[in-house]
Amino acid sequence: MSKPLALHDDRLFPAEPGTRAIARRLYQLVKDLPIISPHGHTDPSWFAGNANFGNPTELLLAPDHYVYRMLYSQGIAMGDVGVGDRSGPSKADPRAAWRIFASNFHLFRATPSWLWMNFVFTKVFDIDVALSADTADHYYDTIDAALKTDAFRPRALFERFNIELIATTEGPTDTLDHHHKVLESGWKGGRVISAYRPDAVIDPEHEQFPTAMRAFAEVTGEDVYSWKGYLNAHRKRRQDFMKVGTTSSDHGHITANTANLSPADAEKLFQKVLKGDVTAADAETFRGQMLTEMAGMSIEDGLVMQIHPGAFRNHNGQVFERFGRDKGADVPSRTDYIRALKPLLDRYGNDTRLSIILFTLDETTYARELAPLAGHYPTLKLGPAWWFHDSPEGMMRFREQVTETAGFYNTVGFNDDTRAFLSIPARHDVARRVDCAFLARMVAEHRMDEDDAAEVAVDLSYNLPKKAYKL
Amino acid sequence: MSKPLALHDDRLFPAEPGTRAIARRLYQLVKDLPIISPHGHTDPSWFAGNANFGNPTELLLAPDHYVYRMLYSQGIAMGDVGVGDRSGPSKADPRAAWRIFASNFHLFRATPSWLWMNFVFTKVFDIDVALSADTADHYYDTIDAALKTDAFRPRALFERFNIELIATTEGPTDTLDHHHKVLESGWKGGRVISAYRPDAVIDPEHEQFPTAMRAFAEVTGEDVYSWKGYLNAHRKRRQDFMKVGTTSSDHGHITANTANLSPADAEKLFQKVLKGDVTAADAETFRGQMLTEMAGMSIEDGLVMQIHPGAFRNHNGQVFERFGRDKGADVPSRTDYIRALKPLLDRYGNDTRLSIILFTLDETTYARELAPLAGHYPTLKLGPAWWFHDSPEGMMRFREQVTETAGFYNTVGFNDDTRAFLSIPARHDVARRVDCAFLARMVAEHRMDEDDAAEVAVDLSYNLPKKAYKL
Amino acid sequence: MSKPLALHDDRLFPAEPGTRAIARRLYQLVKDLPIISPHGHTDPSWFAGNANFGNPTELLLAPDHYVYRMLYSQGIAMGDVGVGDRSGPSKADPRAAWRIFASNFHLFRATPSWLWMNFVFTKVFDIDVALSADTADHYYDTIDAALKTDAFRPRALFERFNIELIATTEGPTDTLDHHHKVLESGWKGGRVISAYRPDAVIDPEHEQFPTAMRAFAEVTGEDVYSWKGYLNAHRKRRQDFMKVGTTSSDHGHITANTANLSPADAEKLFQKVLKGDVTAADAETFRGQMLTEMAGMSIEDGLVMQIHPGAFRNHNGQVFERFGRDKGADVPSRTDYIRALKPLLDRYGNDTRLSIILFTLDETTYARELAPLAGHYPTLKLGPAWWFHDSPEGMMRFREQVTETAGFYNTVGFNDDTRAFLSIPARHDVARRVDCAFLARMVAEHRMDEDDAAEVAVDLSYNLPKKAYKL
Repeated sequence: MSKPLALHDDRLFPAEPGTRAIARRLYQLVKDLPIISPHGHTDPSWFAGNANFGNPTELLLAPDHYVYRMLYSQGIAMGDVGVGDRSGPSKADPRAAWRIFASNFHLFRATPSWLWMNFVFTKVFDIDVALSADTADHYYDTIDAALKTDAFRPRALFERFNIELIATTEGPTDTLDHHHKVLESGWKGGRVISAYRPDAVIDPEHEQFPTAMRAFAEVTGEDVYSWKGYLNAHRKRRQDFMKVGTTSSDHGHITANTANLSPADAEKLFQKVLKGDVTAADAETFRGQMLTEMAGMSIEDGLVMQIHPGAFRNHNGQVFERFGRDKGADVPSRTDYIRALKPLLDRYGNDTRLSIILFTLDETTYARELAPLAGHYPTLKLGPAWWFHDSPEGMMRFREQVTETAGFYNTVGFNDDTRAFLSIPARHDVARRVDCAFLARMVAEHRMDEDDAAEVAVDLSYNLPKKAYKL
Repeated sequence: MSKPLALHDDRLFPAEPGTRAIARRLYQLVKDLPIISPHGHTDPSWFAGNANFGNPTELLLAPDHYVYRMLYSQGIAMGDVGVGDRSGPSKADPRAAWRIFASNFHLFRATPSWLWMNFVFTKVFDIDVALSADTADHYYDTIDAALKTDAFRPRALFERFNIELIATTEGPTDTLDHHHKVLESGWKGGRVISAYRPDAVIDPEHEQFPTAMRAFAEVTGEDVYSWKGYLNAHRKRRQDFMKVGTTSSDHGHITANTANLSPADAEKLFQKVLKGDVTAADAETFRGQMLTEMAGMSIEDGLVMQIHPGAFRNHNGQVFERFGRDKGADVPSRTDYIRALKPLLDRYGNDTRLSIILFTLDETTYARELAPLAGHYPTLKLGPAWWFHDSPEGMMRFREQVTETAGFYNTVGFNDDTRAFLSIPARHDVARRVDCAFLARMVAEHRMDEDDAAEVAVDLSYNLPKKAYKL
Repeated sequence: MSKPLALHDDRLFPAEPGTRAIARRLYQLVKDLPIISPHGHTDPSWFAGNANFGNPTELLLAPDHYVYRMLYSQGIAMGDVGVGDRSGPSKADPRAAWRIFASNFHLFRATPSWLWMNFVFTKVFDIDVALSADTADHYYDTIDAALKTDAFRPRALFERFNIELIATTEGPTDTLDHHHKVLESGWKGGRVISAYRPDAVIDPEHEQFPTAMRAFAEVTGEDVYSWKGYLNAHRKRRQDFMKVGTTSSDHGHITANTANLSPADAEKLFQKVLKGDVTAADAETFRGQMLTEMAGMSIEDGLVMQIHPGAFRNHNGQVFERFGRDKGADVPSRTDYIRALKPLLDRYGNDTRLSIILFTLDETTYARELAPLAGHYPTLKLGPAWWFHDSPEGMMRFREQVTETAGFYNTVGFNDDTRAFLSIPARHDVARRVDCAFLARMVAEHRMDEDDAAEVAVDLSYNLPKKAYKL
C-alpha cells in the first residue's frame, strides 16, 4: 500500500501561473550554482577521515533534533528513535527506531523536515515511494546499502552536492586537527573551514567555563587568568583558526546585550568572574563586554562577527538532566537589539572595517529593529531566517519584513546551520526557491524588473554569502 | 433600495483558480461533518429549558460584544443597542436598537462579525436582501417571527446545526442543575457538557473571591480555609463536573505564569491569601501555583487543562463602573510563555498523562514560543486562534506561523468560544474554510500531497478536537 | 547601456488576473481624487515664497533620510551625497553626489524609495530611461533644467499634484509667518495649514527645552514658569495655530505613556521639571501628564490629537555628534499602548468630543493592542502604517492585522509624513494602490461585495482623512 514519491519541479513556487513562470526562470539561474555554506555544524572528522557513515537511524534520526523533538512532542521516547542519553548511546535497534519514525512521518506534514527528508530520500537515495509504516524496511535497506558504498562517503557526497565551501564551528580550545588533516590531504574537492565560537570561555554561567578556561590556558600558553593574557589568548586562537581558513567568529548568547566598559572596569569585572563572584547581571555584562572586545579584535584581524542571540537552552529540565545539551529542548526567547547593541555600536558601529552579521529567533524584530539597524549602520548585516524560522514560511516572512527597509544588499544569503550533512542541498534548494518565489512576486507586481530580479537571485544564492563572509 | 444578499460558495477560498479548486475539493470532505464545540459560553439553561429565544435585539445584539464594541467605538451608546447596565436591562426599544445596528452595518465590512452575521441571516433565517437602514424592519420582523416558532427553539437549532457536542463553561460554585436536567431529560439530539473554570476561587484579586470562597465551602462541604480542604474542594468539584460529562478545566489568568512551590510554601501563601494580606506579586504567585496544582489534579483525574491567558479585563474604567464585566472593554496584552510555564513544566511537563491546551491573544508568540514549546513537550497542544484572532486573517496567521514547527497534530482543531449560539455553524464554517484554504496552498505549492491534505482537513475539523478533549 | 523606465499601470496589484481586474476597477475610482495630506513635514516657506527649488541633489538626496541611510549602510559617507553636518552644508559637488547615488541605485530594489523615486523620475520629470551610473548625468541635467522653470515652482507643482490640502508641522514657538503669508497672498491653488507640535516645551529631556521655554514665554506673553501660565501659553498657541487653519496637535514621545495626576501633583512635578531636578521617570511622567493635559485642551478647542510614539531618536551617537538630529539614525522601539494609554483613557477615553489618532513603529501592536483599543474607545482612531512601515508590505500588514478588529472606519486614510515634496503624489499613489489591492482580495474571496469595496476605497483615499482631521 505504498504511494509514489516525487518532488515536483515547481515546489515552493507561487501557484499563480504568471508568477510561477517568473519564479521558474529565476530558479533556472541559481539552481546549479555551487553551495556556499558559511555557517553550520557538520563534523570536520567526516571530511578528514572520509569514513562511511553508519546506519540510517544513526545518520538521519539520532542527530536530527527537528525530527526527534516532533516525535517526542507526540509521546515517543527519544531513546526509542536512537537518541543516546548521558549514560551512553541508545540501545534501540536501529531498524525498530526507523520503523517508529516511518509510522509517524505524517506528523511532519507541512514542516521543513518533510521537505528536507523527502529531498534526501529522492535525490540522494533515489527512492520513489513515500515513507510510511509499509515502506519502512524498504527505506532502511536501501539507505543502509547505499551508505556502505564509496559514493556515499563524506567527500564523494561533498563533491556530488556541489559544495564549494563549508564552515564548521569549533570551540576556543579545539586543536583543529581535522581541519589541518583536510588541508594536508591535498583533497581538491572542496574547502572545509571553521568558525571561532568562544562561548565556553566567555560565558561565566556556562557549565564548562572553569574547565574550558584551563584548557584555554593550555592550548594558548597564555596567562588567561590575567585580563591581558586572556585577551591575547583570544587573539592567538583567532590566528590559529585563520590558519585553517576561518573568516568568522560566532557568538551564541542568551541576549544581544553588549557593554562598553573602560579597560579598568572590564579588567575588574573579569577578576570577579574568575573568582566566581558574579551576579547574573555581572555575568551578562561580561558576556556583553566580550562581544565588544571581539568586535575590536575583528577590526584588527578582519574576522567577520556572527551574533546568534535568543536561544533559551535546555528549557526542559528533566530532559537536560537525563539527555544533556542539544536535545531539541531549546526554545526561542524574546530578544531586544535596539538598546542591547548600542554600547558596541557607540564604540565601533561606524568603523567600516568591522562587519557584524545578526541573527534572531524573534521575528518581531525583523521590521522593527533589525532592518532599521542594518539599513543604517555600515557595520551591520542580517543573517537569514534561523533555526525555527529556517522554513518556507519563515524565509518568506524574513524577506517580506526586512527588504523594504534593509534592501537585499544588507542581507548575506543563506546559512544552512545544520549538522545533518545529507540535508544541505535540500536546505539550500528550499532557500533558493523561496527567494525566487519572493522575487517573482515583486516582478509580477511590477515592483522590480525581471533582469534586476535575476541579478538579485544570483547575488542571494552565491555572491552575497561569499562577500559577506569574505570567502 | 435593497440589494441581494447571498453567500458565495467559494467564500474565503484563495482566488487563484487552481488553488481554489483544491480548496473546494477539501471543503467537500469536511463541510458536513458534525460540529464539535469543546469550548464556549452558551447558556446551558437554553438546552435544559428549551424555551423560545427573545427578540432579535435581545438574541443577536445585546449579548454580542463584537457587535456593540464596534458600534461604541463610533460613538453609539451601548444602551441604545440593547445592552443593559448595572442598574438593569436596557430601556431601548428593541426595534429602534435594531435599526441603529442596521444603519451602521457598513462598519463591520471585512470583519468576522460581517461573515458570521450574514451567515446567520441567510442560512438560519433565509433572508435574501442585505442588511441596511432600508431593510432593518424587514429583518426585524422576519427574525422575530421565526424566533417564536418551534423550529427555532434551542434543541431544534442544536440538531439542525449538526452539533454533536457542546461544552459550556461554569464556575467552581455552579450546581450544574441545567446540565443534569439535560441529561435527565432523555434528549438524544446532542451532548451538553461543562468545563470547570475555577478562576473566582483561585484569583485573590477577583472581585468575587471572598463570596466565591464562602459558596465554595458550602457547595463542597469542605473546610476550604485549610490548604488541604481547599485542594480537596477542587477535587470534589472536578468530580462533580465529570458527572455531567466534563473533560476539561479552563483557566483565564492575566498571564501564563506558573509556580512550583513546596507544599509548605504553598500552604503558607494560601494562608496569606485568605487573610487578604497579599501583594500583587503574591497574588500572581498564588494563581501560578494553582495552575500547577490543577495540572497535578489533571494527572489524577484525566481532565484536560485549558490555559487562556493574556486578557486585560475591564480596561475601560468608566464602562466597567457603569456596565460591569464583559462589555467589550477587554483587550489583549503581551504574554510570555517561555519563562512563565517553566515551573509547571519542570514539575509535570514530561508526564504523558497530562494534556494542556494553550491559547494566546498575543500572536507574536505563535512562531517564537508556542509552536517551539508544543513541538517539544508531550504535554502541550495549541488551541486555535482566539477571540480577537478568531477571524480569517487571524486563523491564517495561526497556521502559517505555527505549522512549520508544531505541525498539525500538536493543534486541537477549532473552538468557537462563543455565547452567540446562532453563530456557531458560521464560525465553524469559517474555520473549516480557512483551514482548507491553507491546505490548498500547501498542495498547490507542492508542499503536501492532496490525499495527505484531505486527511488533515478531516482531522482538523473533527478528529483532533475529539481526541484532544477526550470526547 | 541604458534600459527603458516605465511605470506599469498594474504596479502593486495582485498578480492573479481576477483579483487584479477588481483592483484596477477600484483604483479607477480613486486615482484622480484630490490629495489630502493631513500630516507631513514640507517647508511652508516653499509655498509662501514660491521660489524655484535648488539642484537635484539638494532637492532629492540631501533631505531624504530614506536615501542616505541606505547609502550609509553600505559604507558611503553622508557628506559625499550632499548631507550637511553641524559645521555647515556638504561641500560635495552636487553632480558628483548624484553620480554616487545613481551608481548605487540597485541598493533600493524592492524598497519604497525605489517606487517613489521612479514615480518622480517618470511622472514628474518625464524621464524614460532607468537610473544607473550610465544615465546619471542625463538625469542630473534633465532634472536640473526642469527645476529652473516656472512649472516646477512649489505652487505650480502643488496644483499639478492635485493637492487639496497640506499640513506642515511647527513647534510651539513658531511664528507661523509663512502660513500667514500664504493666506494673505490670495493663492487659490490649495490650502497650507500647520499642526501644533509642542514636544520641545513638553519634554524635559529635549536638548532645546530651556531655550524653547524662554521663547515660549516670549511668543505667548505668559508666565510659562507657573503651571497655570504654562498651560495658558499652550492654549494661546493652539489658538494661534488654529488661525492658520490648524486642526490637529502632534506628539512624538519615546513611549505612549500617559499620566493622570491631580492638579496639585501635576503642578509640583512641573516645578521639579523647571528646576531641572528630575529623574528619567519624572520626565516620563511629565511627558505623559502633558498628553493628558493636551487631551483636555482638545476637548475645549476641538484640535485632533496625534500621538506618534516609539522613535528611538539619534541611536547612532557618533552620527548625532557630527551631523545632528534627523540624519537617518532614528530607529523604532518596542511600544506598549494597553497600559500606557490607560491613565489618559480613564480620564477622557469616553468623551466623544475628543479624537486621538494613534501611530506606531511597532507592528506587533496592530492586532494585539491598537485594533482592540480603536475598536472599542470612541476617542481612538488609527493612523496609517508609519515611517519604516510606510511601504507596500507594511501597508498591507496594517490592513491585514487591523481591519478584522477595528474595521475600516476606525482608521483615518493615508498620511505621507514627508519632507520630500516631490514624492507626495507617488506616496499617495502607493497607498491607494495597496488599499485597492487589499480590497480586491476581500472581493475576490467573497468577503465583501465590490460595491461596498468601491465605497471603502473612496473613503480611505479621501473622505476618512477629511473627516478624521476635521478638514
